[in-house]
Amino acid sequence: MVVELISVGTELLLGNIVNTNAQYLAQQCAGLGLSVYYQTCVGDNGKRLSDAICLALTRADMVILGGGLGPTEDDITKETAAAVWGMELKEDTHTKERIQAYFHGREKNIPENNWKQAMVPSGALVLDNDNGTAPGLILEKEGKTMILLPGPPNELIPMFQESVVPYLKKKRSSALVSVMVKSSGIGESKVAAMLKDLIDNQTNPTIATYAKTGEVDIRVTASAATEKEAGKLVKPVVERIRGVLKEAVFTTDETVTLEQEVVRLLDKHGLTLVTAESCTGGLLGGRLVNVAGVSDVYKAGFITYSNKAKRKYLGVSKNTLKKYGAVSKETAKEMAKGGVFQTDADVCVAITGLAGPGGATKEKPVGLVYIACYVNDKIQVKECHFKGNRNKIREQAVICALDTVRRCILEHYHETARKQ
Amino acid sequence: MVVELISVGTELLLGNIVNTNAQYLAQQCAGLGLSVYYQTCVGDNGKRLSDAICLALTRADMVILGGGLGPTEDDITKETAAAVWGMELKEDTHTKERIQAYFHGREKNIPENNWKQAMVPSGALVLDNDNGTAPGLILEKEGKTMILLPGPPNELIPMFQESVVPYLKKKRSSALVSVMVKSSGIGESKVAAMLKDLIDNQTNPTIATYAKTGEVDIRVTASAATEKEAGKLVKPVVERIRGVLKEAVFTTDETVTLEQEVVRLLDKHGLTLVTAESCTGGLLGGRLVNVAGVSDVYKAGFITYSNKAKRKYLGVSKNTLKKYGAVSKETAKEMAKGGVFQTDADVCVAITGLAGPGGATKEKPVGLVYIACYVNDKIQVKECHFKGNRNKIREQAVICALDTVRRCILEHYHETARKQ
Repeated sequence: MVVELISVGTELLLGNIVNTNAQYLAQQCAGLGLSVYYQTCVGDNGKRLSDAICLALTRADMVILGGGLGPTEDDITKETAAAVWGMELKEDTHTKERIQAYFHGREKNIPENNWKQAMVPSGALVLDNDNGTAPGLILEKEGKTMILLPGPPNELIPMFQESVVPYLKKKRSSALVSVMVKSSGIGESKVAAMLKDLIDNQTNPTIATYAKTGEVDIRVTASAATEKEAGKLVKPVVERIRGVLKEAVFTTDETVTLEQEVVRLLDKHGLTLVTAESCTGGLLGGRLVNVAGVSDVYKAGFITYSNKAKRKYLGVSKNTLKKYGAVSKETAKEMAKGGVFQTDADVCVAITGLAGPGGATKEKPVGLVYIACYVNDKIQVKECHFKGNRNKIREQAVICALDTVRRCILEHYHETARKQ
Repeated sequence: MVVELISVGTELLLGNIVNTNAQYLAQQCAGLGLSVYYQTCVGDNGKRLSDAICLALTRADMVILGGGLGPTEDDITKETAAAVWGMELKEDTHTKERIQAYFHGREKNIPENNWKQAMVPSGALVLDNDNGTAPGLILEKEGKTMILLPGPPNELIPMFQESVVPYLKKKRSSALVSVMVKSSGIGESKVAAMLKDLIDNQTNPTIATYAKTGEVDIRVTASAATEKEAGKLVKPVVERIRGVLKEAVFTTDETVTLEQEVVRLLDKHGLTLVTAESCTGGLLGGRLVNVAGVSDVYKAGFITYSNKAKRKYLGVSKNTLKKYGAVSKETAKEMAKGGVFQTDADVCVAITGLAGPGGATKEKPVGLVYIACYVNDKIQVKECHFKGNRNKIREQAVICALDTVRRCILEHYHETARKQ
């Protein structure tokens, strides 16, 4: 099945935002075994959008449109798509109620233009939006399909996962099974080199690597007549990858994030965690609290941006700060130790580093970050050299800290187990 | 002049990379006053690429193509573009010498397929590539132009800046000036309603609103014969928008973020800030440290996820937590007050709320967040009802907290000024 993507929004044509939706949808389509030959980006202009839709319908079986479903007059994707297929718009009671519920308690008067979002092309399948007011829509006519999704990624992605993926899986003729092996702590080119034989000889299943900051995911995808058969093809390849990458693999469950795995390990071993952050300023804590139920293991965190705060809240000695500096192995160690002793936590991970752009010296360049992890009387410190801008350095530091906690716990309990 | 962008590369269609080139080129074109109505993305496929070029040439005066100029057999952009206009490829001595020089000292044997990159359509203008082996090309025929650029951003961007911008400036007939008015604390539909008259009557300048989480940006763009004249058209409209949205406007400088404005205000009034976060777990601190130079005003933050931590580090009373609960106006107030008294900061902003999915009651639904701000002995508390998933609720809480600090400082110093 051939799919074409159309992104709608003048902000894309002006370059105000980068089109991450197109990448997300393209990845998803590839994962589902759907071919994408063209992606188009068009502004909030009726004639041009209509032309783009008509052209896409001549080239593809299915057109996925993102954006232009908002409440303002600029938002015309739904109206334009409906007009292309001569569908009338009717008020959808269910959607109207959802919009009412969305605004309930938030604003006294619902802005008049929001009701526009309750209008739905006749015969359309409505996809509920749990993160905004614009519902998604699936329109079908003469064997072709149009799928309309809201533009904001935090609305588009959950809607695609929850409503569009099940719809697309039903439409497909052959079964496709795909497993994502997620790894952290090894770079992409190293992973690629380690898996070279497997990747070079791939046919079915196929193997593709996806690098994110600090994480490399390997997708293994097999197609077969049935889901069971495809699953049988995938399994041994996943096991081989596990065998090669060893403890770098933190999950083979696509929905599990690195922070979830860390929380799971802490919980499994009855450990509580405290964070002590300098250059990341709370981003590690912010990432941990993404995990539902984290409150059982994560009690408190310290953002100690100044030296004074490092001394006062974490008990880092004046002498250490003076002798080695705030960005040093010694300070990282004392931060991690202090985090545990100031609280009653079992584990503390500490981050101190130079995110730049200022503050660098010849000995301590921008990107130098120390990560210390204290687990049951044992401290490990890692010296990292990250590249990129301020944000990128911080992001890498946070992921490396999560990976360090994960590996320290694994190591600690593995050792304990061997000793027994 | 109408420009169309075509990005070439199967890796884009598979979603392996995000198309940052399209954003860059779109931004550049907008800044140069060139209209972009369509962006297309197509794979390394001769027939489909040829179709995309032919279509673009019917819709635009100029087509900018990025990607597909590499040395491999997959790379066919140059060959395809030349074929569309019936141009022959000839070896370009200058480019051949540059390729030789590029490899000099790097590799002993120049890979044979690199010589393909020295072949140039007859009559083309060659743009030297200082960061790779593929030259850029400008082709002209019957009043239309095709510009071919290499795909890697670190080759495309410098080549565009150094060679294409001067070329385009010469071609341009009018000047464009654009100002971004950024606002926080009011929803998109409300902003649209407030600016309805202005938006409805727009011609030149044009007015467009862009909603991000917690922020609405309004772009005002005018075109005129000269930059000065265009600037004169923009100015009064920006002033009218300021007059309508009042203190919701936090900047008219496109490069300034909300957190930068908060840091600027703190710095201006010689104030230091401490953060006290519960449900956001450090995201507010993480956002603040995005600002270079924040260390002058931001010294420390507390992530007090548990009640115990709220008591121990912020001095929230056991009684308050018992009587009103962790998610309450009273707890938020004590957190903010405690943040200031535990440290020597002037301002503390505290966040406590229910990000879900668990923990909700009838009285306290998911999305209920209290934000308290303490500035010089005065505390303000806001009760917010955010919608969406865990992440969305947290993101809104962080932005609302920044907006609250901003407004509290504005109010505080405005009052002080009036009293004097």
